[in-house]
Order: sequence, then C-alpha cells, then structure tokens
Amino acid sequence: MKDRKAVYEYIEDHEAEHIARVQEYLRQPSISADGTGMSDCSQLLQEYYRELGCQEVTEVDVGGYPFVWAVYSRGAPKTIINYSMYDVQPVEGEAWSSPPFEACLQKRPPFERVIVARGAHNSKGGYRMWLNALQSILAVEGKLPVNIYFTAEGEEELGSPHLPAFIDRYLSRLQEADGVLSCIPCQQHDGGIRLTLGVKGIYEFRLECSGERWGRGPEKHDVHSSMKAIADSPVWRLIHALSTLTAPDGNRVLVEGFYDNAASPTSEDLELIRDLSSQFDSSVWQRTHDIQRWADDLSGQDLLVRFMFSPTLNIQGIWGGHTGAGSKTVLPHKGVCQIDVRLVPGMTVEEVHEKLRAHLDRHGYGDIAILPLGGYPPARTSLKTKLVQAVVQMYRDHEITPQIWPLSGGSWPMYLYCEKPLRLPYCAGGLGHGGGAHSPDEYLVIEGNGVVAGLVEAEKSYVDILYNFMDA
Amino acid sequence: MKDRKAVYEYIEDHEAEHIARVQEYLRQPSISADGTGMSDCSQLLQEYYRELGCQEVTEVDVGGYPFVWAVYSRGAPKTIINYSMYDVQPVEGEAWSSPPFEACLQKRPPFERVIVARGAHNSKGGYRMWLNALQSILAVEGKLPVNIYFTAEGEEELGSPHLPAFIDRYLSRLQEADGVLSCIPCQQHDGGIRLTLGVKGIYEFRLECSGERWGRGPEKHDVHSSMKAIADSPVWRLIHALSTLTAPDGNRVLVEGFYDNAASPTSEDLELIRDLSSQFDSSVWQRTHDIQRWADDLSGQDLLVRFMFSPTLNIQGIWGGHTGAGSKTVLPHKGVCQIDVRLVPGMTVEEVHEKLRAHLDRHGYGDIAILPLGGYPPARTSLKTKLVQAVVQMYRDHEITPQIWPLSGGSWPMYLYCEKPLRLPYCAGGLGHGGGAHSPDEYLVIEGNGVVAGLVEAEKSYVDILYNFMDA
Repeated sequence: MKDRKAVYEYIEDHEAEHIARVQEYLRQPSISADGTGMSDCSQLLQEYYRELGCQEVTEVDVGGYPFVWAVYSRGAPKTIINYSMYDVQPVEGEAWSSPPFEACLQKRPPFERVIVARGAHNSKGGYRMWLNALQSILAVEGKLPVNIYFTAEGEEELGSPHLPAFIDRYLSRLQEADGVLSCIPCQQHDGGIRLTLGVKGIYEFRLECSGERWGRGPEKHDVHSSMKAIADSPVWRLIHALSTLTAPDGNRVLVEGFYDNAASPTSEDLELIRDLSSQFDSSVWQRTHDIQRWADDLSGQDLLVRFMFSPTLNIQGIWGGHTGAGSKTVLPHKGVCQIDVRLVPGMTVEEVHEKLRAHLDRHGYGDIAILPLGGYPPARTSLKTKLVQAVVQMYRDHEITPQIWPLSGGSWPMYLYCEKPLRLPYCAGGLGHGGGAHSPDEYLVIEGNGVVAGLVEAEKSYVDILYNFMDA
Repeated sequence: MKDRKAVYEYIEDHEAEHIARVQEYLRQPSISADGTGMSDCSQLLQEYYRELGCQEVTEVDVGGYPFVWAVYSRGAPKTIINYSMYDVQPVEGEAWSSPPFEACLQKRPPFERVIVARGAHNSKGGYRMWLNALQSILAVEGKLPVNIYFTAEGEEELGSPHLPAFIDRYLSRLQEADGVLSCIPCQQHDGGIRLTLGVKGIYEFRLECSGERWGRGPEKHDVHSSMKAIADSPVWRLIHALSTLTAPDGNRVLVEGFYDNAASPTSEDLELIRDLSSQFDSSVWQRTHDIQRWADDLSGQDLLVRFMFSPTLNIQGIWGGHTGAGSKTVLPHKGVCQIDVRLVPGMTVEEVHEKLRAHLDRHGYGDIAILPLGGYPPARTSLKTKLVQAVVQMYRDHEITPQIWPLSGGSWPMYLYCEKPLRLPYCAGGLGHGGGAHSPDEYLVIEGNGVVAGLVEAEKSYVDILYNFMDA
C-alpha cells in the first residue's frame, strides 16, 4: 500500500464508532486485585481478536488470571508480537467526577473531550484504539501489513507473576517474530515524546540481622534496654554491616567487584545523551521530586549518564525494635533493611547476590541473611533496529523529535523479550495522550488540542508505524 | 518501745480485718490511662490518712491527676518521706481468672492464699499492708515512732510527669525529712531479697536525618528508587552517622568524651559486687532474656561491674521508608533512630546531649537533629546510711542475706530524692511477695509458704523497719 489516505479517511469516517468501542472496552471492569470482571473481560478481548479474523484465539492458563493468545497470520513477510494487559487498578476509596466504569465523555481543559475511566490511560483505552486502527486497515485493505501474535495478560497490575511462564510455554511460536511492538498513546501533556531503549534490572532483598542467627544478643524477643550494658545488639550490628556497603556519601557502592561488569555507555549512547541534554530540563525533576541538589552536584550530560548507567544500592526501608510513638526502653532482637539494587547492562542478579554475600562474609557478617524478594536482569534494544526506526520515522513525519533515552532509570521485565532466548527488538510508541494512571479521573484524550493528538490522529499513527515497519 | 511483741500480736489478731482493708483498696479502680476511679481512689486514700490521725491531708494539683499530701507529725526525732502511687495499669483485653477489681482470695500453688487484683503487687496491695502496720502501731502505742510525710501520686503508670513539679512545690517541707522510705513486699518467688542502692540515669532521644534539613535527597516525600542513581539518601546518611557513634561491636561508645565523667565503682561497690557474684547466677538471666553469650563473653564479677557501671548507647528502634510487607521501590526522604543512653553516676543528661551534638557536628552531620524525648540523671544512696541499715537489719533478723546491688541497670527518677537539693537517703524494703505487675492475674501473697512471708509477717517487717530506724 503506497497511499495510506484511504485508511486515514476510514478512521475519520468512523470516529464515533471507534469512540464507542473504546467506551465498550472500558465499561467492562477487569480488576485483577479482587477479580472483578476478569473473566468477562477476557471473553470480550477474545471476541475482539475473532473480529480481526485471527486464526487462533485461546485462553492460556499458566496459573493466575489467564493470558489471551491470538494469532493473525496472512503470510506477511514480517511478524510482530503485540503485548498488552487487560487488567486495571482497583478504584476503592477514590473520588471520581464520573463513575470509573461508565467511561463518560467529559470536557477537561485544555481538552474538549476526554474519556474518564479506570484503564482509560493504563491501558485499555489506548489498546482499543490500536484494535480500531487494525480494523480500519482490514476494512480498507482486506489484510494487515504484518502478522501479529497477540499476547494479553491479566496480571500486569499484580507484577506480571506468570509472564515468564507464559513466554516459556509459547517460546517456539514467539521465536518466529521479528519484534515486540506496543502501539499506545505516548505523548506527554506538552505533546513531547520520550522513547526509552532499555531498562535497568533490579534485585530486591532484605538484609536481616538477628540475635538468633548471630548467637549473640537477645535471640527470640526484645529485652529491657538496661541489658545493653552486657548484651550485644543485632540492630547495631546491622548498622555497622550496612556502613561497609557504601562510601560515607551513601552513593558509591563498596561491595567488592560491584561495578566490574557494569557496561559503560557506548558512543551511540553518549551521542543520544548529548542530544537529550539539550532538551532535558532537570529543574522539572527537582520540582517533581522535591530535590534541591543532585548527588555530587551533577548536572547536564553527567547527570543523565549517571542516571542511566549507574547501578545503585538503594535502601527502600529499614526497621527494628520500637517504631511507634513515645519511648520504649527495649534492646531489639532483630533489625531488617530492605534494599533494591538497580542493575545496568552487563550485570546479573546472581552476581550481585554472590558479591554481596562474599562482601558480608569477608567483613565478618556471615550470620547476616540475604533474603531475596525477587529480581530480573536489565535489557536493551537498539535504536538502529527496523522496529524502533519505524516508530521514530512516524514521529519525524509528524514533526516530533522524540527524546531518546538509551536506558531508563526504572525497571520492568523487558529482558523476557529482548534477552536470550528471544532476543527481539522491543518498542512502544504512538501518538495520543492520557493521564491519571492508578489515580482517580484517569483519562484518555479523544479530541486533540493541536499539541497532543486525539483518537483519530492516534489511530492513524499506529497505522503509520505498522506500514513503516512493513516497508523497512 | 523495747518490745515489739504487742504490735505483732495486734497484727496477728487483726489479720482478717487487714486482709479486708487490702481488698477494699484494691476494689477501688484507679486507672490513670483512662481516668477510671482516679478521683474516688484519691478520696479513699485521703480517708486512710485521716484514720491515721494525720494533721494535714490535702489534694495537690500540679497538673494531671492530683497528688495526695499528708503529714503525721507527733514530735518524733526523725521524719521520713513515704512515697507511693495510687494509680494502676489498665486491664483491657486481658484474661483474668477472677475479675481484676474484685480482689478475690484464691489458692495459687505454691501459695494457699493470694489476692488476685490489678494493683495487688504494683502497688496498692502492699501499700495497704503498710498502712495496716502503721494503724497497728497506733492502736498499741498511741503514736508512730517517726514523723511521716506521705506523698502519693496518681501518674506513676504514666511516667510520673508531674513528680518534679510536686517535689519542687513541697521542697521546703521535704527538706525537713531524714530519708525516703517505701515499705513494700520485696521478696522474690524464692524468698530472696534484692536491695538496690542506686539507679542509672537515662536520656532518650531521636536522631532524625531528613532531606529537608540536609538540603540533599528528597525533601518532603519518598521518591521512586530509580532516582537513587542521582539523588542522595537520608537513610544512608543516618546509617553512616550512626556507625561513627560506636565501635563495630556496637558496644564501645566512640562519642568523644562519653566516658570521661563516668564514675568507676568504689572499693565499697567492688566489695558488694564480690559478695553478690558468689550468689548471682547469670544463667538465669540468660534463660530469661534468651541470650546465649554476654558481650565480650563477660562472666562473674566482670559481668556485674559492666552491667552496673557501664553507660550505654542503646538503639530502641530504627525506621525509615517502606517498613511493611512486600516491596516498594522508594528512596525514603527521612530516617529516624530512637536511642536511650543510660548514665552512670557522674554523668548528666546535658553533657551527653552536648557531647553527642559536638560529635555529630565534628563528623559533618550538623544537619542531623537530636530530638529529646526526656531524661534524668542517675542517683545513689549509701549502704551506710541509717535508713538503709534499718532495712538491712530487719532482713538479718529474719535470717535473710539480701543481695545488695550498688547500682541497678535500669532507671527511675530517684535523683529527685537523692540528689540536690534534697540529697536524702532512699530505701525500699520489706518482706512479702507479689507478682504479675502489668499482667493478668496480678497477685499478692496473703498466706506465706515458709519461703516468702504472708500478710502478717510482711506487716511485722514494716514495723521492724520503722523501729530499727527510730533506734538507729
């Protein structure tokens, strides 16, 4: 298809119907936290895939709420995996201006029309726009430009506990694909786009120092603090052990070998960061996070390089003994520190665990337990891949210069797609805007304001991405 | 009075009546935590003092629940201050074998008869026995062998917040006294007596490290932990600051000058500890507190010297960030550590605060706040004082060798009586036994078992103490 105009026109002509489909999907509750509507939503989504003419549509049970697997395959040269989630956050105790599962159209300045609903932005609203775009192509062209393996999960809001098992089950099919694509409304409030090419890994664990394991101090319960004169303190021990883990600044990690495998930014990364630093205003972050000065008074490119390429050893929380109001003269029998380590490319959860264990042992803290809470490795995709370029090209055609971040500071299990065994490129992109994820009055913009795209322009951008990728 | 037999006989003859008075006082609730019965109990106590023929009986308001002040003065050469408390702990949610304010007589092996009631042991049961003893002397002799300034407070279970103000108000009267005496049932379950000649002082405070005060890291709320790469952590800062306060063993305090004014045990103290160590079995403490090994593997006299004469810097509790179940990827904006310092003779709250402040400042932690929760100095009384000797003599006459502890590991505001301006000797002593303070089925032994004294022998011992002191 050389001219996409016919599809564009179809979308324009069917705007009302497309809005109604978005509302229909949002009106079906699907709260994974308590199970509300989960089964009905899975059925509805399967019906959507059948409408597209998918050859395979099936519910997949790998534990927890089912995945939905669907295949559209009409012999196109390229195949994408389309990841989505059909569950949403709960709404309990929240004050909404219209009921969260009525998906009302509202005026919400600066926007003339938005849909207000749980899941409008995260992420069923945008997903139904994507399905609208696919149906429009089918209506005009008779078939899609790529084959699509649809994978939808119902437990994203629970932390995707069964995603690894699902991917493992469908590995041989997923390996046939050329990339993983999510077409979603990605525009920020100001119309800008942030495109992230990778994520850090994460390892979460607790360090627990107890009298019982130590064989010193109180073993089973807190004792009267007068005993401190002759009894050792597990909490003091925890503090001294922790103090060996970082430099006094609390930033530089002193665990032996911690940085050994941390990849430095490539010249491509540095070039992207250079471009980025000219657009990026760190004072916005300072206001958002209420932080006056950055670590080591970093700024500009140095700040961005550190943000993306520095592994971290962060204390999420620490507790031990009396933590309530007033005084309680006790010597606690246990202290706990909960930590997350963010891993940059090159690092693994296993090596971090082993190096930390070796560090503690070497410093005489063999009794301090490392209790893992979970983790997964980092992952990256290259800007040069055809899939990412197809997305970037769409932005350029709309005269948008995306902020391209080689790596995010945060984490999600992108490694499942981008690292062994799949090793696929991954990209999320598209015009459109929504907000209020996990909050009351979550919304999706239906009528654009010249800065962010509305439903029609968003759906067209998804069409563009698909055809760009087909042509790449 | 050369022969105490007549008083003894009076007590024996009036046992039933004396038990009834104990029950009467215990049946009057006086829960300072919620105010139940406090006013009625104060009235009842005033009535008791009037029965003794006190010239002054008055309620004293210095804030909070009133004190009761009463004076018995018939020109005896010596005057004692008698401290007591008329409030008790709450009973909410506790399972009692008989109602806590019915003061039922029960068989409780190895004792044939005990009274079960809130306050039976702590401390209204024993106090009414003391009043019974005084009434018996009055009945037989017509007057008491000493003048007595009765001071009773209604907020002991709240931490005696108004005791300093009360003492200040009555200072000129209290200064006329020769000592402070509490006659109470002091026998342990095995009949043994522990006589403590002093207490440590205490200083309780919080160390708080916040991004707001520091001017670094998140200031007002926890932020996403991905920010750790470029943001400083107040909790890490707290840990590094804490790690400068003690040696890695968590015992030896490194705050500059911390030990400078801590008095060493005198030769008298060491002699007492030598005697004590021959009777003291630290394995009982090990079982009670679930502690296998003492700090530095101390034992014998060394253990006792350290317990009594070492000041401590104990962590009561520490908290910051996420302290609940599961994971939460946050970088906390604040960390808090709650500490108690136990002061040995020679040390003051003020000097500890100043030395800690100077230490933190010197180590670059000027922003870490010391938030005082309260405190008071240590205090001691000498074994050689006539008051203490009067009590010790009573024990010897009953062929009991008291364990004499020069100093307790714990703290109470004994300084109010023993240090400037009053500087009075203080002693608590007497036969009798009770248990279960602050617990269900709190009890007071009424019928002794040959090992611990019952009500009659306990009351006689209080008579002995008074006459010993008169004769001293």
